[in-house]
Amino acid sequence: MSSHILKWSHLHRLPRTTALIKGARPQHTAASPVYRDDVYQQPLVKTEIPGPKTKELSDRTSSMQNTGALAFFCDFERSKANYLVDADENIILDCFQQISSMPLGYNNQELLDLCKTPAFQSTVLNRPALGTFPGTDFPQLIQDTLLKVAPPGLNQAVTMACGSCANENAYKVVFMWYMKNQRGEELPLPDDEAFTSCMKNQIPGSPKLSILSFDGAFHGRTLGTLSTTHSKPIHKLDIPAFDWPIAPFPKLKYPLEEHESENSKEEARCLAVVEDLITEWSKRAPVAGIVVEPIQAEGGDNHASDDFFRKLREIALKHNVAFVVDEVQTGVAITGKWWAHEHWGLETPPDIVTFAKKMYIGGYYFNDNMRWNTGYRIYNTWMGDPSKLLFLEKTIDIINSRDLVSAAGTTGDYLIKSLKDLEKAQPGLLSSSRGRGMFTATNVRDPGARDKVVKHMLSQGVLVGACGSESIRFRPSLLFTPTHVDIAMDRLNQGLNSVKG
Amino acid sequence: MSSHILKWSHLHRLPRTTALIKGARPQHTAASPVYRDDVYQQPLVKTEIPGPKTKELSDRTSSMQNTGALAFFCDFERSKANYLVDADENIILDCFQQISSMPLGYNNQELLDLCKTPAFQSTVLNRPALGTFPGTDFPQLIQDTLLKVAPPGLNQAVTMACGSCANENAYKVVFMWYMKNQRGEELPLPDDEAFTSCMKNQIPGSPKLSILSFDGAFHGRTLGTLSTTHSKPIHKLDIPAFDWPIAPFPKLKYPLEEHESENSKEEARCLAVVEDLITEWSKRAPVAGIVVEPIQAEGGDNHASDDFFRKLREIALKHNVAFVVDEVQTGVAITGKWWAHEHWGLETPPDIVTFAKKMYIGGYYFNDNMRWNTGYRIYNTWMGDPSKLLFLEKTIDIINSRDLVSAAGTTGDYLIKSLKDLEKAQPGLLSSSRGRGMFTATNVRDPGARDKVVKHMLSQGVLVGACGSESIRFRPSLLFTPTHVDIAMDRLNQGLNSVKG
Repeated sequence: MSSHILKWSHLHRLPRTTALIKGARPQHTAASPVYRDDVYQQPLVKTEIPGPKTKELSDRTSSMQNTGALAFFCDFERSKANYLVDADENIILDCFQQISSMPLGYNNQELLDLCKTPAFQSTVLNRPALGTFPGTDFPQLIQDTLLKVAPPGLNQAVTMACGSCANENAYKVVFMWYMKNQRGEELPLPDDEAFTSCMKNQIPGSPKLSILSFDGAFHGRTLGTLSTTHSKPIHKLDIPAFDWPIAPFPKLKYPLEEHESENSKEEARCLAVVEDLITEWSKRAPVAGIVVEPIQAEGGDNHASDDFFRKLREIALKHNVAFVVDEVQTGVAITGKWWAHEHWGLETPPDIVTFAKKMYIGGYYFNDNMRWNTGYRIYNTWMGDPSKLLFLEKTIDIINSRDLVSAAGTTGDYLIKSLKDLEKAQPGLLSSSRGRGMFTATNVRDPGARDKVVKHMLSQGVLVGACGSESIRFRPSLLFTPTHVDIAMDRLNQGLNSVKG
Repeated sequence: MSSHILKWSHLHRLPRTTALIKGARPQHTAASPVYRDDVYQQPLVKTEIPGPKTKELSDRTSSMQNTGALAFFCDFERSKANYLVDADENIILDCFQQISSMPLGYNNQELLDLCKTPAFQSTVLNRPALGTFPGTDFPQLIQDTLLKVAPPGLNQAVTMACGSCANENAYKVVFMWYMKNQRGEELPLPDDEAFTSCMKNQIPGSPKLSILSFDGAFHGRTLGTLSTTHSKPIHKLDIPAFDWPIAPFPKLKYPLEEHESENSKEEARCLAVVEDLITEWSKRAPVAGIVVEPIQAEGGDNHASDDFFRKLREIALKHNVAFVVDEVQTGVAITGKWWAHEHWGLETPPDIVTFAKKMYIGGYYFNDNMRWNTGYRIYNTWMGDPSKLLFLEKTIDIINSRDLVSAAGTTGDYLIKSLKDLEKAQPGLLSSSRGRGMFTATNVRDPGARDKVVKHMLSQGVLVGACGSESIRFRPSLLFTPTHVDIAMDRLNQGLNSVKG
């Protein structure tokens, strides 16, 4: 282990004393082989966070753009696996991973080796207009990446640059599918008024249709997706929106086992509203699709039961409405399955599943039924970036060969148990710990206390995310282990102590 | 030269006979030093295009997604500078460059060398959530890239993943700015109804505001930008749209010098409609911004005079409407200035200038007046990809050190002169040749003939783009020279001959 540390330190010019943390427990034993990913063994905080170097860099940046969302600057070359090194040389256990977008943490050696290959370098430099002039490796690459991990029942995949574009284009596919069903053909006759009216944004070519979304949802920030996002006002204020129906998302009470009947009624209430809205909107702007996250992340890690989602899928089928599952944050193994909706046991797969973040690239899956057959209906210059598929290809190999999907389930069980233990140890301060695999969250007493706890944890070298008004979310890399859980729980406990009384 | 060819052939396993084209004119003389970028000296077509290998790969791809927009598969590792090698080993002079998105063509050696550096590899692998956890090099990188080539008068810059996201977010900035002007403060008071109503997509929080766009415009395909795109029905059919005002864009007659008075009246007519629409919409959905391309590209390479744009800018000022210039396709030197709108001689700079394509990254410029001061109003996980800024940094150095901005003007003059000469040589077949720098186009007799000419040119090894209904567009790399123009004109002439009679 120490030679590994020294090698990394040498390569990255980190002072040896920084990397070899005093008092660290020896971790590299036969009993914990998973620790081989890290070169840092625990957090080491040397300054305030944000520290003086971050403040200096932040001042420089704020002359060029708003920095209101800036946390701290990162020294990515020195970061490794679960540990993020900031500009002030603080070594931080990162349980948030660039907003849940790094499946294997920082500087994974196999991915770094990939960057050194001529094939990767040619792909990243010669970025094609993927829909028109793809590289010769493209069909094999889709098969070895997107289709290799495709949700059951979906055999089509399209790439996009980011999560918002993935959802925007998924909605377009839904509208195209809906209108195809209405007219019985993909396209109207050539002299149909639809062609001229759409050029003016008018019916019938630009039809009045809607996407039904849920209170608390987050699906993106472009104008279409923002009309289905309802997590925080600051995302939406002053931006025109489509007048589309919004259903309540179940507000479950915890612990679940003590509120079964109540929660079941709450879910039934929400599903009834969904059906009412579909009927109500049929005259105004018919609902062409329903979009839902398996777990509302940005909105506060709001869960619903598998039964709720199965019934929602049935409602969509009953009303001939497309069922779109937004797995931008829940996808890629973190819930203990590759896709979170695989937990539901659906009889009919979703019509569309969207992705981004830990997939490195945006995009969506669908099946033959949703497919369109006319070029340029869904299109843009880049259609994503195939170099990201090369990262994905190697990442899938690593995840499969190390069975990191199962590991996420096991570590997740330990994480949720640890949170529940802490609930008991800190009564009145922590509640509603919940999760699926490592995709977990817990609630702090009130929003002010939550913010203080998150800040205190960071000051002790553990980065977690905030979501909703009073929740803390864990979005670790797939290399996160029970040892990391212990460190995070220790700092969470310290954070809770800091807001006591 | 031959040793250079051999080296490249060797590295890329191209048969020497393929690279050393028989009958090629010797180009590498003191008089044509610019040719050092190429290793291929002229097109070499061995098969039909699309050829058998493209057809096989296309069949495989079409089982996984619609391939209606697919032209041919590319062998990017063998491509170089202005020459694109396809899956069937055809060597094609590429005057389209991945839909105008490659400033320096394929496999530029300095950019390839950049890919080999640890700094690039760390940046491309450890992709940050740029708005919250940027790398320590980020402020310097913005200064050395975006701000180094910022349009005069604009000192703020934000990055996004693509052109659609750039425009979507630019519109959001416009709406935020408009509402700030309305209320006198960036944010309403904390108990204002705006915060609750926006969560339901309702007024006053989600205000009824609009962006005025032009007939023939193309600004993207996401739901907000698509409401300002009016180039082809197939982009818009079946997709709900915001009911926003659309003004006519001048239809100029060519040659310009023979139609000065007529064209001037046409521009005045369009400007009058803009003002009428702003007034008309003030009760319905006030116009918060005007968006315009310096040259409507996708819509058919439609130009207007510098005077038109100066007056349009004045109208925006007069009505307190933001003036957004979409330079996604016109940006980066190809018009003979870094930004096309620099030709206009504006007294007041645009409020926002958006970019993507040859900038490698999406985003937009603005000034202090348009700036917001609350975090998370404009935000997403990735906010682009800083590895693209490293490409841009090196590309700016190359463009400046070789003065490729001026070269684009010079080669462009030769290109437009050559097109006009061809108009005379092919009366009735070619007309309305037009351009700014190398950003040029010409019209073929009718849409059917245009398609045949484009196809014939490709069969003779020259790739150009189509736009509008009957135009051919040239979007070469900045390494394009008069020698390349000669080759392209030869193939265009052959294409025109093929549709004669």
